Amino acid sequence: MSLDNTWFTEPMDKTGTAFSLKLGERVHAEQTPYQKIEIYRTETFGHLMVIDGCTMVSTRDNFLYHEMMSHPALYSHPNPRDVVVVGGGDCGTLREVLKHGEVQHATQVEIDERVTRLAEQYFPELCVANGDPRATLFFGDGIAWMKEAAPESLDLIIIDSTDPVGPAEGLFGKKFYVDCLKALRPGGMLVQQSESPLLHIDLIVEMHKAMHDAGFAQTRLLHFPQVIYPSGWWSGSIAQKTAGPLAERLDPATLQTLDTQYYNAEIHRAAFAVPNFVKRALGV
Amino acid sequence: MSLDNTWFTEPMDKTGTAFSLKLGERVHAEQTPYQKIEIYRTETFGHLMVIDGCTMVSTRDNFLYHEMMSHPALYSHPNPRDVVVVGGGDCGTLREVLKHGEVQHATQVEIDERVTRLAEQYFPELCVANGDPRATLFFGDGIAWMKEAAPESLDLIIIDSTDPVGPAEGLFGKKFYVDCLKALRPGGMLVQQSESPLLHIDLIVEMHKAMHDAGFAQTRLLHFPQVIYPSGWWSGSIAQKTAGPLAERLDPATLQTLDTQYYNAEIHRAAFAVPNFVKRALGV
Repeated sequence: MSLDNTWFTEPMDKTGTAFSLKLGERVHAEQTPYQKIEIYRTETFGHLMVIDGCTMVSTRDNFLYHEMMSHPALYSHPNPRDVVVVGGGDCGTLREVLKHGEVQHATQVEIDERVTRLAEQYFPELCVANGDPRATLFFGDGIAWMKEAAPESLDLIIIDSTDPVGPAEGLFGKKFYVDCLKALRPGGMLVQQSESPLLHIDLIVEMHKAMHDAGFAQTRLLHFPQVIYPSGWWSGSIAQKTAGPLAERLDPATLQTLDTQYYNAEIHRAAFAVPNFVKRALGV
Repeated sequence: MSLDNTWFTEPMDKTGTAFSLKLGERVHAEQTPYQKIEIYRTETFGHLMVIDGCTMVSTRDNFLYHEMMSHPALYSHPNPRDVVVVGGGDCGTLREVLKHGEVQHATQVEIDERVTRLAEQYFPELCVANGDPRATLFFGDGIAWMKEAAPESLDLIIIDSTDPVGPAEGLFGKKFYVDCLKALRPGGMLVQQSESPLLHIDLIVEMHKAMHDAGFAQTRLLHFPQVIYPSGWWSGSIAQKTAGPLAERLDPATLQTLDTQYYNAEIHRAAFAVPNFVKRALGV
């Protein structure tokens, strides 16, 4: 059975899978200096932002990704004061980061200002923290920003980028990780979206190797459902500057104030459970 | 962008989502007295069995579902000797059940013998335990089978069925659960596939209510990735005849002999972590 144009479809030719959402209509389309951005109204997932043909964020399921790219890492760091989000132009990760009272300053470094302006229009609920006095919205190249970041000035770097092709490619390699490592304080960490455990295990293995090669002491995988991304199963990879167990600051009172839809203390631990085939691939 | 006939697509009109796999070719199709069964060769997921247009099992990702529909429940029961699989005609769940030395007898009750015969041909790796002396393959109606089962003769009932429409509808209601409860020994449990936590939370809530209404003392949700099913995120629901904590017999030596691709002790606990929105929906 074929799908017609009443569906938005992202066919992934390399993985042989496709995911589709039933459409209302396309409400916006533009070519920026960096990429093509489209916004659709879907029948059951609210608004959908598509960049260069890839699903980026939907109203209905973005909570999974945004919560899991921020809270597990934030509660694994003993005292995250200075946080930077590289990419993340829809501001959903920034919003989650700023739910943490211990964060004193969070900078979002997004290359394409239009992503943020369109998020403000079509995903206003993701942008509610943009006016927080602790927030800085910087529009520019994340790779250049990190190269110039003051040494030992950051506690947590969240790399919330598109796939490792096109503009985001440079965010997935040793060179960039070396700059990240330098910018982190002792005990600091990086967390990066690292695609599907089932479909992209080779990429995950390469990323962890590059993180070690760059000088990070330890890496870990976390995983979670993410419906609109290929396979519906997604991961983040954490690299720690200093070896040792993660802090796990899972105080029930603190967690309760977070107001999350997916994340809680049980989910925090669950996300770090490593499936057997991943253990074998990563040699852990 | 539309998808042509070089893809197999399962459009879910009610949920507004679709999942597709890039095809090689259709290698078999038949109409049985119960349903239409098709087998495809896909480009990246091996063989794919489709029943009445719904993806059922693929070579590449079935380990997720089969391991998670069996091992968490088996290791949550203190001593599972007599197990029945209702449905499960591809024999993958039966194979996992028979990896447990403590299981003395496992019966698969599948209504459509053709599912099993085609699995033997196209998914032979799922059928390797069919000749186990502890295994019985019975072809007939699971609802009738359960009605006639000897009282207190079973430790674990695994309901590995299609969606709650068509032939499997009767497996998702109070009447059937009452028969299951009667057939279970004290301390016995039932585990049933219960669709997607994101897309079908209303169904999950209804199922748990029906299990309680039937007299089960306690219910729990477990969840796991399942790439070819709608949303890529799937669940099972456990109903316990007797209230109380689950046994959690997670002895490392025993687990190591299982030879699983996804499941292990960490994954066991992770699967029972309940997301916040599910807690709210289930009132737990």
